[in-house]
Amino acid sequence: MESFVMFRDLAIILVAGKYLGLLARKLNAPQVAGEILAGLLVGPCLLNLVQPSDFLAQMAELGVVLLMFGAGLDSNIDEIIKSGPVALMVALCGVVVPLLAGTGLYAVYYGIDGVGSDSFMRALFLGCVLTATSVTITVQALRELGHLKGKVGTTILSAAIIDDVLGIVVLTVITGFKDPSTSITDVILDTVLFFVFALTVGFLVFQLFERMDLRHPHTRRLPILGLAFCLMMAYIAEALFGVADITGAYMAGLVLSKLKDSSYIERRLDISSYTIFGPVFFASVGLSTDVSAFNASILVFSLVFLVVGLLSKIIGCGGTALLCRFTPGDSLKVGVGMMNRGEVALIVAQKGLAVGLMNAAFFPAVIMLILASAILTPVILQVLYKLQPEEHPDGLMGK
Amino acid sequence: MESFVMFRDLAIILVAGKYLGLLARKLNAPQVAGEILAGLLVGPCLLNLVQPSDFLAQMAELGVVLLMFGAGLDSNIDEIIKSGPVALMVALCGVVVPLLAGTGLYAVYYGIDGVGSDSFMRALFLGCVLTATSVTITVQALRELGHLKGKVGTTILSAAIIDDVLGIVVLTVITGFKDPSTSITDVILDTVLFFVFALTVGFLVFQLFERMDLRHPHTRRLPILGLAFCLMMAYIAEALFGVADITGAYMAGLVLSKLKDSSYIERRLDISSYTIFGPVFFASVGLSTDVSAFNASILVFSLVFLVVGLLSKIIGCGGTALLCRFTPGDSLKVGVGMMNRGEVALIVAQKGLAVGLMNAAFFPAVIMLILASAILTPVILQVLYKLQPEEHPDGLMGK
Repeated sequence: MESFVMFRDLAIILVAGKYLGLLARKLNAPQVAGEILAGLLVGPCLLNLVQPSDFLAQMAELGVVLLMFGAGLDSNIDEIIKSGPVALMVALCGVVVPLLAGTGLYAVYYGIDGVGSDSFMRALFLGCVLTATSVTITVQALRELGHLKGKVGTTILSAAIIDDVLGIVVLTVITGFKDPSTSITDVILDTVLFFVFALTVGFLVFQLFERMDLRHPHTRRLPILGLAFCLMMAYIAEALFGVADITGAYMAGLVLSKLKDSSYIERRLDISSYTIFGPVFFASVGLSTDVSAFNASILVFSLVFLVVGLLSKIIGCGGTALLCRFTPGDSLKVGVGMMNRGEVALIVAQKGLAVGLMNAAFFPAVIMLILASAILTPVILQVLYKLQPEEHPDGLMGK
Repeated sequence: MESFVMFRDLAIILVAGKYLGLLARKLNAPQVAGEILAGLLVGPCLLNLVQPSDFLAQMAELGVVLLMFGAGLDSNIDEIIKSGPVALMVALCGVVVPLLAGTGLYAVYYGIDGVGSDSFMRALFLGCVLTATSVTITVQALRELGHLKGKVGTTILSAAIIDDVLGIVVLTVITGFKDPSTSITDVILDTVLFFVFALTVGFLVFQLFERMDLRHPHTRRLPILGLAFCLMMAYIAEALFGVADITGAYMAGLVLSKLKDSSYIERRLDISSYTIFGPVFFASVGLSTDVSAFNASILVFSLVFLVVGLLSKIIGCGGTALLCRFTPGDSLKVGVGMMNRGEVALIVAQKGLAVGLMNAAFFPAVIMLILASAILTPVILQVLYKLQPEEHPDGLMGK
C-alpha cells in the first residue's frame, strides 16, 4: 500500500464517522452508532471506498486499548466499594443471567459438543458479549429526566461500575481458553496471577505517579507516561499471562483512577481517542462486518439475540432489585437502565474475532443489539417514570 | 508481528522519549533532541529493544503530517504580508544561500554528473535540508533576553515564517523530480497547479469551516474535520500532483490558520501530536539512523556540514540585513537568530530517505546540526546582546 492511501482512508473514515455520528445524535441515538454505520457505508459492504488494512486494524486496536484505559481512569474505586451489597448483587446477576442466556441461545441454535469443546467456548463467548452494560445513554436519560441521583439512578450507576469489572473478569477467563491445550486451572491461575501482578505493580506505579503529580501537576509527562503504562500493561497481560490486552489497559486505568490528576490524563487522552483512534475503531467494526453472509436465518437469530440480550438484563438486574425490596416499578427501571449495550460489547466481540472464538457473521446481531438498546432504553425509561414517578427526584433531595 | 508487540514498542518509545526529552531540556537543549536520542538508544544501534516496523513507520508518517499541519495552523498570513520587503529579502537569501552551499558541499565531496543527474538531485536535496530555519529556540532565547519585540526579533520572526513557505516550495519542486522521467516543466506545472488547487479548494473549505465555526464554536467537529481536511490534502498532493504529502498538510494548516478557532483546532491536535505521534516520529528518526556506516569520513563530513549549515544562514540572512542598513551588530544577531535548525530539517531529510534522494548515512550529520545549532544559538545570542545592546529592548518600547 502506498503510504498516502492511508491518509485518504483516514480522512474518509473521519468525515463519514463525524457526519453519521452527528446524524445519529440528532435521532437521539448514540454517536457510536453513526460511527459504526460509517464503517459499513464506506467499507466493502457498500461504497467500497476504504478496504480493511493492517494499518487500520492496528490503529483500531490502539483505539480499543485507549477506550478501555479511559474507562478504567473514569472509574471510582471508592464508589464501587461504598455502593454496597445491593449494587453488587444487581451487577452479579446482571452478568450471570445474560452469560447463561447467551450460552444457552448458542447451544439451542447451533448445538454444543460438551463442556470444554470448541463449540462450548463459542457459546460461552456469545454469552460473554451480552454481559457488559453501557450506562452512558442511561445516565444521559436519567439526567434529562431529573432522576440521576435518586435510589434507582445510584443503584444503576454503582452496579454498572461493578458490571464493568465483572465483565472484564469473565472475558479474561474465557479468552484464556482460546488455546485448547490449556487446562482450566492454568487459565484461572494465570488470571489470578495477572490480577495479583497488576495490583502489586499498580501499587508501586501509583506511588511513582502520585509523587510526579505532586511535583509536576498538569504537565505533559502525566498523559504520556500514563499512556506508556497502559500500553505496557496491555502488552504484559497478553504476552506474559495470556490475558486480554484490554484487561491490562483497563487495570492500568483503574490503578491511575485515584490519582489527583486522573481526569487531566483522561481528558488529554480522550482527545486522541475521539479525534482519530475512536472513529477508526468503530468504523473498523463496520468495515469488518460481513454482510455477504447475512441471510434470513441470521436475521432471525439477530432478533432472538436482541430479545435475549434485553430480557436477560431486565430479569437479572430487575429481578435482583425486586429481591432486595425495591418496588416492582423501581425494579423494572433498574432492569431497563441496565439493559443498554455499547462499545464494550463491540470490543469484546472484536476480541472474540481476533482469538477465533467468534464469527464475523455475528457482528450484525451485536450491532443491532447496540442500536436497538440505545434507542429503546431512554424511551422506555421515560415511559416508566411517567407511569410511576420516583419519590425523591433530584430536585427534592436537597444538596 | 503479534499485535501486542506494538504496544510494547510504543510504551518503550514514549518512556525513553519523555525522559531523554526532559533531560535535554535540563541541559538547555530542545526536547526534540532527547526524543531523537531515545530512538537511537532503544533502536538497533544500541539497546535493540525496538525494531523498525511498518506500523511505526506509518505512525511516524502520520506524526509528520500532524506536525506540518500544526505549523501551518500556527502561521499568520497577515504577518507574512505585513512584514514587508526586508523580512522577505532576509528569508529569500536565507533559503538560497544554504541551498547553494549544501549543493556545493555535496558536489565537492561526492562529485555530480551534471545538471539533472541523480547525483545532482541528491546534491540539491542536501541543500534543501539546510534551508528550513526553526525559530522556536530563537524565540525562546529572545523572550528570555527581553528582545523579542525589538527590530531584530520582529525581523527574525517574520523572515522565519516566510522561510517556512519558501522551504516548502523548494522541497516540493525537488521531490517532484524523484522520478527521473519527469521533465522540469512537468514538475513546475504540477507544483503550480497544486498551489492553485490548494488555494481554490482552500478558499471553499475555509468558507465551510468558517460557517461551522460560527454555528458550533469549540466543538469536536472542528479538530476532527480539520484533521480530515489535512489528511485529504496530504493525499491529494501526493496522489494527484506528485507533490510531497507534508506540503499538502502545511497548506491545509495555512488555509485554516485564519479561522477564529484555529488555535482551538491546533491545541486539540497538538495533544495527539505530543502524546503519541510526535515522539514516535522523532524516535523513528533515531531508529532508522544508520550508525553502522558511520566512520571517520562521515564524521568529518558531518562537521563540515555543520559549519556550512550555520555559516550559510549567517551569511545569507545577516548579509541581507546588512545590505538593508541594519548595523553590523544587529545583522549578526539576525544571522545567528536564523541559523537554528529543527524538526523541519529532519522531516525534509526523512522525506528524502522515503523518495530515495537521501542516504540514511547523512542522518547523523543532520542530527548533529540540529543539536549543535540548538545549543549554540541561545549562547551566541546572549553574548551578542551583552556586547551590543539593542536600542529599544521590550521594556522601553512602551505600549
